[in-house]
Amino acid sequence: MMFLARVYVTLKPMVNDPQGLTVKGGLHTLGFAAVMDVRVGKFIEVTLEAPGRAEAQQHVERMCRQLLVNPVIETFRFDLEPAPV
Amino acid sequence: MMFLARVYVTLKPMVNDPQGLTVKGGLHTLGFAAVMDVRVGKFIEVTLEAPGRAEAQQHVERMCRQLLVNPVIETFRFDLEPAPV
Repeated sequence: MMFLARVYVTLKPMVNDPQGLTVKGGLHTLGFAAVMDVRVGKFIEVTLEAPGRAEAQQHVERMCRQLLVNPVIETFRFDLEPAPV
Repeated sequence: MMFLARVYVTLKPMVNDPQGLTVKGGLHTLGFAAVMDVRVGKFIEVTLEAPGRAEAQQHVERMCRQLLVNPVIETFRFDLEPAPV
């Protein structure tokens, strides 16, 4: 079965986010004074083949821990659905 | 009222994604042979003050069009919720 995993990777709350600060500055310059905070993370879509949902879940979890996420500074969550044909 | 907008920015389907290809290659090297495709996008969390939900929605939409998204190669969607205290 083919699955689509949507992985959301975000910096931990304590971690400084220079990219987010830059975007926030840019938004203020453009007149969006009401913006209080901006955090920039990653959104990774992985299409994978697996015998079932449980296996797909395990695989994606391992991918995150081994490559997609830096556990020192980032956290992640993901959802899983059958891949659109 | 304080709102949290979660903005998902993805490359359009036609657009080449070298970062995604690199990640896919890395996952294959690590033994995840079942990975068919990887696309890497951005996940931006914007905390903003607005009088109501409709205004917040409009502001975020304009931020996306003016700064956060490159409409030539990217598309976006976002959801909006009251910011956690």
